[in-house]
Amino acid sequence: MKSDELFALLRRRGVFWPTAEIYGGAQGLFDYGPLGTALKRRIEEAWVAWFVGLSHDYFLIDPAEILPEAVVRASGHLENFTDPEVVCESCKAAFRADTVLEKVRPEGVDGLTSKEIEEIVRGRGVKCPHCGAVTLSVPPPFNLMFGLDYGVTGHERAYLRPETAQSSYLAFSRMWDVGRHALPLGIAIVGKAYRNEIAPRQLLFRMRSFEQAELQIFFDPDHFLLPFDRVADERLPVVRAARRLAGSEEVELVRAADLVSAGGLPEFYVYHLVHTFRYYRDVLKVLPERLRLLEKSDQERAFYNRIQFDLEVQLDSMGGFKEIGAVHYRGDYDLGRHGQGSGKDLSVTVTGGRSVLPHVLELTYGVDRSLWALADVHLGKDGDRTVWHLPSYLAPVPVGVFPLIPKEQAAYALALSDDLAAAGIPNVYDDAGTIGKRYARMDEAGTPFCVTVDAETLGEGPLHGTVTVRSRDSKAQERVPAPELPSRLTPSFRPPRPKRS
Amino acid sequence: MKSDELFALLRRRGVFWPTAEIYGGAQGLFDYGPLGTALKRRIEEAWVAWFVGLSHDYFLIDPAEILPEAVVRASGHLENFTDPEVVCESCKAAFRADTVLEKVRPEGVDGLTSKEIEEIVRGRGVKCPHCGAVTLSVPPPFNLMFGLDYGVTGHERAYLRPETAQSSYLAFSRMWDVGRHALPLGIAIVGKAYRNEIAPRQLLFRMRSFEQAELQIFFDPDHFLLPFDRVADERLPVVRAARRLAGSEEVELVRAADLVSAGGLPEFYVYHLVHTFRYYRDVLKVLPERLRLLEKSDQERAFYNRIQFDLEVQLDSMGGFKEIGAVHYRGDYDLGRHGQGSGKDLSVTVTGGRSVLPHVLELTYGVDRSLWALADVHLGKDGDRTVWHLPSYLAPVPVGVFPLIPKEQAAYALALSDDLAAAGIPNVYDDAGTIGKRYARMDEAGTPFCVTVDAETLGEGPLHGTVTVRSRDSKAQERVPAPELPSRLTPSFRPPRPKRS
Repeated sequence: MKSDELFALLRRRGVFWPTAEIYGGAQGLFDYGPLGTALKRRIEEAWVAWFVGLSHDYFLIDPAEILPEAVVRASGHLENFTDPEVVCESCKAAFRADTVLEKVRPEGVDGLTSKEIEEIVRGRGVKCPHCGAVTLSVPPPFNLMFGLDYGVTGHERAYLRPETAQSSYLAFSRMWDVGRHALPLGIAIVGKAYRNEIAPRQLLFRMRSFEQAELQIFFDPDHFLLPFDRVADERLPVVRAARRLAGSEEVELVRAADLVSAGGLPEFYVYHLVHTFRYYRDVLKVLPERLRLLEKSDQERAFYNRIQFDLEVQLDSMGGFKEIGAVHYRGDYDLGRHGQGSGKDLSVTVTGGRSVLPHVLELTYGVDRSLWALADVHLGKDGDRTVWHLPSYLAPVPVGVFPLIPKEQAAYALALSDDLAAAGIPNVYDDAGTIGKRYARMDEAGTPFCVTVDAETLGEGPLHGTVTVRSRDSKAQERVPAPELPSRLTPSFRPPRPKRS
Repeated sequence: MKSDELFALLRRRGVFWPTAEIYGGAQGLFDYGPLGTALKRRIEEAWVAWFVGLSHDYFLIDPAEILPEAVVRASGHLENFTDPEVVCESCKAAFRADTVLEKVRPEGVDGLTSKEIEEIVRGRGVKCPHCGAVTLSVPPPFNLMFGLDYGVTGHERAYLRPETAQSSYLAFSRMWDVGRHALPLGIAIVGKAYRNEIAPRQLLFRMRSFEQAELQIFFDPDHFLLPFDRVADERLPVVRAARRLAGSEEVELVRAADLVSAGGLPEFYVYHLVHTFRYYRDVLKVLPERLRLLEKSDQERAFYNRIQFDLEVQLDSMGGFKEIGAVHYRGDYDLGRHGQGSGKDLSVTVTGGRSVLPHVLELTYGVDRSLWALADVHLGKDGDRTVWHLPSYLAPVPVGVFPLIPKEQAAYALALSDDLAAAGIPNVYDDAGTIGKRYARMDEAGTPFCVTVDAETLGEGPLHGTVTVRSRDSKAQERVPAPELPSRLTPSFRPPRPKRS
């Protein structure tokens, strides 16, 4: 589906809609409705099960989203978390420099100073995209953080965090004390980050308040043993940076072991790259041919990232491959900066008595983006039906419960709905319209199983009655004793987990 | 336990700690560690299961935490969401007026203007609590919202929401369209709210970023039928406002039906008051004698609240009863204001063709506060042990898995830990120290069950081995076949649900 068409469907079904819609909306902000909220929660659970589940030494925490100024000064965000901006002196509109200069400078503006950008704008006579005047000017780069006047004196500054990662770096010291004093130590956060994007657009892809799921793995670069054998034969769809610089974006399927031996990447990096790839393929169930791991070049990476592959998914609604997540090897940059900023040495003493400033491997993931990707990839026409083929463990509503004839079986169906809820199976009760219409609503919502109570059920008695279980994908129907529903259905609602090291 | 002692224990165990601790912390902000994050998630799940579970017409949504200025202007927060403040001209310290005037005016400063407060300060010669100078002045009331420079022009304003409720009011119109066009319609949010508190203190009780769980029930005041019979005989520990004005805070046990007939409260209100009381007693497992429902007087309530009872829990660590949640009957104030503010009539047409501007019943709950309450009420000395007697479904770590002799049974125990996780039972593996020390760690973390693998287990073979299950509260041990653990343990990890109407 096209982006507009998909959004219209998701909005109509209450998956998400613009914040403060009755006031005309707010750029870059969206509200999740019942289906979206449940889906997002399932995605979070699946991500945690998979990535925090990678090791007994990886933990989920939940820090505040507000950071004191000293933190973002140390991290470099106060100085560097900026986008070059172009403003029109006539109509006062503001734009991201890269979008305004898209045609005259397709390679982008990364690394250029405001002055250099201004020279291009003037030299090429670039017009304002809004009013057409040739009065564009280039102010100092625009910091994307939301600042807060914190406290009552008006002299304290704090910021909404621009990425969850910083909260993990701040927590490292306490987590070391709380834990077993050993590396690796993984700290995961699923939470909000905030960016005052100059041009929020593409719906869930550039939001001003968005949700990240990130795992920061703190490790000893001289000693990070992993069961690499288990992943050595996995073939990854990569686009190496060198190949890209030579002009090709063609995907190569490369064995994980070869990425290490011939490819020059460290084992610990490729190990986690494989698990990241598997998450998209085996958990989100994206077809491998829609996935690619795109290596970023020296010029493209943030300077502290030593290695970076973005995980991209091909999305018809977005016209091509879009980044959903990434794996960043950040070296010892983060703990080094916060050690300096806080005046507290963040080195730790590892087995053997060595002092180590831990390195960081960061696995990052956009929850909102992945929700959209799951709609793009799994929701669409299936014959004459519109079906959201979500994996069962991601379905916002796992089960629909219907009375075939509401007048006669409503009470039984309502009780069954309560029983399933009590057994840990969220479900919705629906008695409106024909069974066909109810199936259609559930298909669109991605509900994998619909349970129908009919006259036969009641005839068999409340403890033994069989119900019809209809499967979303095959449309097959089967009669199942109602008391067996929890044990029959529950296993399919559990997200996959990796084998732990 | 005293507050300091309890906080020291929770901090040491990584339940929560001050944000940016390595930078000296940030006033009013806390980070949740692994135990705190899991506990908070369980509390959220239990709240949702109970309150959203009250009706098939109540739904959970997740809107953005940022609100455009027009929204908080319409809601009245821009003008009225203020605390009277007192500042010292000498040392520049700022204080909440009510705390500075605690001794000279114990009845508080609600309803007083800045000028009236200034007269008291001058007249009584009140000294600065910080430097002692008699140079206190009273500026205009301090708005507690965090403002944001939103967008790039610097002319747009937006605010971090001061309560989740506003996001539900904004969503009502869309939720009506998405749903079955009928009242009542309940919209629940579990999410962050932000207040720039003048004096953040008492740890999780007055934070600048905190989590609320709120249910807004939109209803037709002429037609809100509920199965009141089911709750009519419940006795509630109330303190009526009239009694309080007469000088007594003594709790009376009053039948729900009597609160309606003699007490003058509407059925719909008492029905939800009973379910709120039951949540604390039957879900959080707070002893009823530690609970009270305190009615607020006309002077104490916000002017738009027609009826308000606060749910208070007696907390030893806080020196008395503390508010954790409340039930507010807000009338049609909210949809009326946003109807005016947005220019969109928020009335709906109900069965029979009548046009109704829905009234709102608000059930509000502080997640952070309740986490602290669960520590105060359930964590403490039990003989020579320190035990957190959390209900199983709230335990951050439901199961501990130990090899009795790590060298011999570690592999089996690790595999068992993975199997339990795959069966949907979060658990931690622990092989450090004696079994006694491992039990002690788990007791303190509130883990209800510890499973130990020993030589006997291995002798019986991987598919049949029995393990020791030790119960936290009774210390009783029982041998259970490992494959039976999920079916034996899972039911106790499901939070209670109310019978749905």
